[in-house]
Amino acid sequence: MPEPVPPAPGSSADDPGRGISRRGLLGLAAAGGVGAVAGIAAGAAVVGAGRPESGSGAAARYDFYGPHQAGITTPAQDRLHFAAFDLAAGATRDELASLLADWTDAAARMTQGLEVGETGAVGGSPYAPPQDTGEALGLPASGLTITFGFGPSLFETADGVDRFGIADRRPPALQALPRFTGDALVPERSGGDLCVQACADDPQVAVHAIRNLSRIAFGRASLRWSQLGFGRTSSTSTSQVTPRNLFGFKDGTANLKAEERSAVDEHVWVSDADGPAWMVGGSYLVARRIRMIIESWDRVQLSEQEDLVGRTKGEGGPMSGGAEFTALNLSATAADGSPAIARNAHVRLAHPDLNDGIRLLRRGYNFVDGNDALGRLDAGLFFLSFQKDPARFVTVQRSLARDGLNEYLKHVGSAVFAIPPGAAEGGSIGDGLFA
Amino acid sequence: MPEPVPPAPGSSADDPGRGISRRGLLGLAAAGGVGAVAGIAAGAAVVGAGRPESGSGAAARYDFYGPHQAGITTPAQDRLHFAAFDLAAGATRDELASLLADWTDAAARMTQGLEVGETGAVGGSPYAPPQDTGEALGLPASGLTITFGFGPSLFETADGVDRFGIADRRPPALQALPRFTGDALVPERSGGDLCVQACADDPQVAVHAIRNLSRIAFGRASLRWSQLGFGRTSSTSTSQVTPRNLFGFKDGTANLKAEERSAVDEHVWVSDADGPAWMVGGSYLVARRIRMIIESWDRVQLSEQEDLVGRTKGEGGPMSGGAEFTALNLSATAADGSPAIARNAHVRLAHPDLNDGIRLLRRGYNFVDGNDALGRLDAGLFFLSFQKDPARFVTVQRSLARDGLNEYLKHVGSAVFAIPPGAAEGGSIGDGLFA
Repeated sequence: MPEPVPPAPGSSADDPGRGISRRGLLGLAAAGGVGAVAGIAAGAAVVGAGRPESGSGAAARYDFYGPHQAGITTPAQDRLHFAAFDLAAGATRDELASLLADWTDAAARMTQGLEVGETGAVGGSPYAPPQDTGEALGLPASGLTITFGFGPSLFETADGVDRFGIADRRPPALQALPRFTGDALVPERSGGDLCVQACADDPQVAVHAIRNLSRIAFGRASLRWSQLGFGRTSSTSTSQVTPRNLFGFKDGTANLKAEERSAVDEHVWVSDADGPAWMVGGSYLVARRIRMIIESWDRVQLSEQEDLVGRTKGEGGPMSGGAEFTALNLSATAADGSPAIARNAHVRLAHPDLNDGIRLLRRGYNFVDGNDALGRLDAGLFFLSFQKDPARFVTVQRSLARDGLNEYLKHVGSAVFAIPPGAAEGGSIGDGLFA
Repeated sequence: MPEPVPPAPGSSADDPGRGISRRGLLGLAAAGGVGAVAGIAAGAAVVGAGRPESGSGAAARYDFYGPHQAGITTPAQDRLHFAAFDLAAGATRDELASLLADWTDAAARMTQGLEVGETGAVGGSPYAPPQDTGEALGLPASGLTITFGFGPSLFETADGVDRFGIADRRPPALQALPRFTGDALVPERSGGDLCVQACADDPQVAVHAIRNLSRIAFGRASLRWSQLGFGRTSSTSTSQVTPRNLFGFKDGTANLKAEERSAVDEHVWVSDADGPAWMVGGSYLVARRIRMIIESWDRVQLSEQEDLVGRTKGEGGPMSGGAEFTALNLSATAADGSPAIARNAHVRLAHPDLNDGIRLLRRGYNFVDGNDALGRLDAGLFFLSFQKDPARFVTVQRSLARDGLNEYLKHVGSAVFAIPPGAAEGGSIGDGLFA
């Protein structure tokens, strides 16, 4: 085992010093050769991607390999860096496959708290650029997960040419989303051939991952758009407390939780019956950049805010009564005979009972990206949801056309991605696509 | 004392549950009336702004009142939200003074983990908009500090009119910064009548502070520009580990530390001898948004990176030898007779020996704000420094005109602010200006 490591920079609140840090491993590698690093990686018990091998918080470490990709049912980490990439014009099938192989290797290392390559930021030749950019040196794994996806455009022909020879492998479910009421989408914040979701409890670790994967892609793919999220808006585990969104309300109380194993199988993972075969164990990701008009929202009276959401602002209990986790009573009436949970309340329109029983696994983040020219914060929710078919998201989003919250929302970015299953050790993400 | 509170949202890595949370206080207020809240606030020992009253990390709580504003020598928190405001056209002296008084009251509450006003997000009338926006409900103080400043434009006449009747109170030191070599400043990211620096160990707490102060300013002042920083790049206390910037190097090793009391007095605080009287105990803040061209930097060989910085990338020791905290030997030579620390090395040009002994108290943050149209991350350093005279920053920045790092940097935003001393309890920030 490596020697105890000093507290990591930027982690005064993150209980540093537990777990293995990049520096600890680096020191060990210097002492014992590269094999020592491989030995630790191989020695760690593989318990399936997305299950913690060790520790919690800053010290949490999730295995990259497994039947499902990590970062879906993994307890939602606090910080996000999300990126969409486009393949370079003229990129070939071999270049796409090699990029995915290189990304897999780098992700498998970084999620273990290792540098992106064996010679790292300082271990290689002084006359070569460092293999790792270095800003995460000394930081622990911080619960990093890296999740890869394929956009519809990857399977489309360009100028009549099947760019990567995979047009016939396209999952029928992977279709561009239809236009929804109120959409104000910006092309520069939408779409993409590939996506990478990096979640971690330390933002420097998430940023380091996207930066290094972007660097690895150089010449083969380039960033199309990217988004940082500073605070999670969903719990994906019953062990987590429900966080609040920028409307000030608890968000994701009724979210699918990893512990609901059969519900996750039913709603999230692509099964043999769903197909295609190379997607079994995978899922589909919908990303929506939802600007919140918070200055207007903040002028709405409390009772109306609660009616529009359908829950109380403090406790988060349904307007039909009870505490946060009390089930909604959609038929309950108020003293005046009107529905206790309003007809246009968000929680009613999003409820499975109004949506063919559909439940989405949400994994969104709060964002603030400066302000606009009128002095309003460019703030909102970067919505992420995983489901076994994007059509399920479409059903719910169409139901939300009547959502009273829409007056305070603007959807400015949108994308959908096929999330292949996890890679087996020795394999690569999406290798089933090229088999 | 309030009852123990449940873990706070978004704080799975932040050791929640220690200290007083907004919810804990809210519950107590509901039970005992508003007086109970006031009782707690009054009962807390006042040990001077910037000194922790209790706990560390998520539970850290700094007093707002004191001889100096907190957020300067306070151990640099992990996350930042910074905002510059412009007064509304036609705003009066009374409106400026009342804004500062309202901001003071709100900041004094929020830094203690309280909601912005006594009725909070859910404690007031259901028929009125909530007094607090609510997204920090249940979160502890998280080490929040809020630091206010005055830009040169506040003291300037507009159309021949002394807008706020304070033109003759302008500190001679408060002058717009000169143009520096390589400046590529964007007006929309520069200047401002007022500034607010919110630092915390939880980004949701920092964002909540800026949002609510912005809301309080409505009609009197509006956001001009704002910046989030996800990771500190400086230590301001010997108790902190040196963090890394996005060049992958440790940053701020030689920074002024709060424990160097006489050096802080010499370099940071405005003294009686400096004046004017209303600024004694204050300081001056320089803010620079420095874009880093990280894609180019990442292609530079390790030895050149280290030569340009003047330190090793791993340990951070000077190129003249030794470990991180070894003093630079500016006259040491390498085997070939050239200077061990290159003539254009950043650490040489920034060193006090080349700058009339000047030391700045740096408090910068890493940022990533999406990417540009070419797929390059809009990443860099949001530089913040405190010094007793902005002319000191000018001296150092002019020395850095020869800095070899400049090839990889672009200064796109710039601002300077007078930071008044701390407020006394019952007083307001900057009230000496109106006395």
